[in-house]
Amino acid sequence: MEMALAEARQAELMDEVPIGAIVVYHGKVIGAGHNMRERFQNAAYHAELLAIMEACEYLGSWRLEECDLYVTLEPCMMCSGAIMNSRIRTLYYGAKNPKAGTVESLYHLLSDSRFNHQVEIRSGIKENECQQLLKQFFKRVRKARKAARKSAQQKN
Amino acid sequence: MEMALAEARQAELMDEVPIGAIVVYHGKVIGAGHNMRERFQNAAYHAELLAIMEACEYLGSWRLEECDLYVTLEPCMMCSGAIMNSRIRTLYYGAKNPKAGTVESLYHLLSDSRFNHQVEIRSGIKENECQQLLKQFFKRVRKARKAARKSAQQKN
Repeated sequence: MEMALAEARQAELMDEVPIGAIVVYHGKVIGAGHNMRERFQNAAYHAELLAIMEACEYLGSWRLEECDLYVTLEPCMMCSGAIMNSRIRTLYYGAKNPKAGTVESLYHLLSDSRFNHQVEIRSGIKENECQQLLKQFFKRVRKARKAARKSAQQKN
Repeated sequence: MEMALAEARQAELMDEVPIGAIVVYHGKVIGAGHNMRERFQNAAYHAELLAIMEACEYLGSWRLEECDLYVTLEPCMMCSGAIMNSRIRTLYYGAKNPKAGTVESLYHLLSDSRFNHQVEIRSGIKENECQQLLKQFFKRVRKARKAARKSAQQKN
């Protein structure tokens, strides 16, 4: 999870919501990604999806059956789907996402036995650190917005 | 939907499960994709995701708020998530996907009011044609597999 956190900090440096993910295969990192939605203005550029795509490329296979994914925040619907579609074995995640998380918060999509694959879930890994990174980011964003509003009011 | 079907036929030509999608913005197609999972061995290369990524690139924005998506098969969890994340306005789809569809078959993910965006759904568009394309594809696959097994048995 330390490496996923390092990825998240990369996102933060680019003013992106700090979320990071890595894919591990037999002890080796074969995919890594951080949120790059704003930079590339692409709705699909989430940390998990980018890490999974890189891992598929590395293995030359869409099946990541012996791979585990580590991500700092509970995955959204799209990334839960990518985790399922790529047959990831175990998902380790840090902070819960009560507004959009589909692994344990709003749904339990990855444990639904109607799908042809189920994913092992380990949550709360370095939860506090993952959560603080996000909280501090949003605090800074709010502060910057407030300052911008104030400055605009003073000009008017 | 005719254009999404044309995309699906492109997939079929490459021995991919024939699924096609397009994104339309103010009457213009700005994103198109067909399933390329096998060719590129990438779990994320579904028709809808590729069409959405292309549309984001075209508009230079991850927000596809005034865009509609047409796809021949009911989207899976990953593609439902990409549709939601990109704020697609209306989803038009052809055939139902009882095993993995998360729009109306197994879940109603795109209508859940807990998320910050809901998508208008229009299903059953050219349903028969979309379904037949898939049925005939899988029929051919089964036939080819049977022939391969028979040939292998004759050799032993």
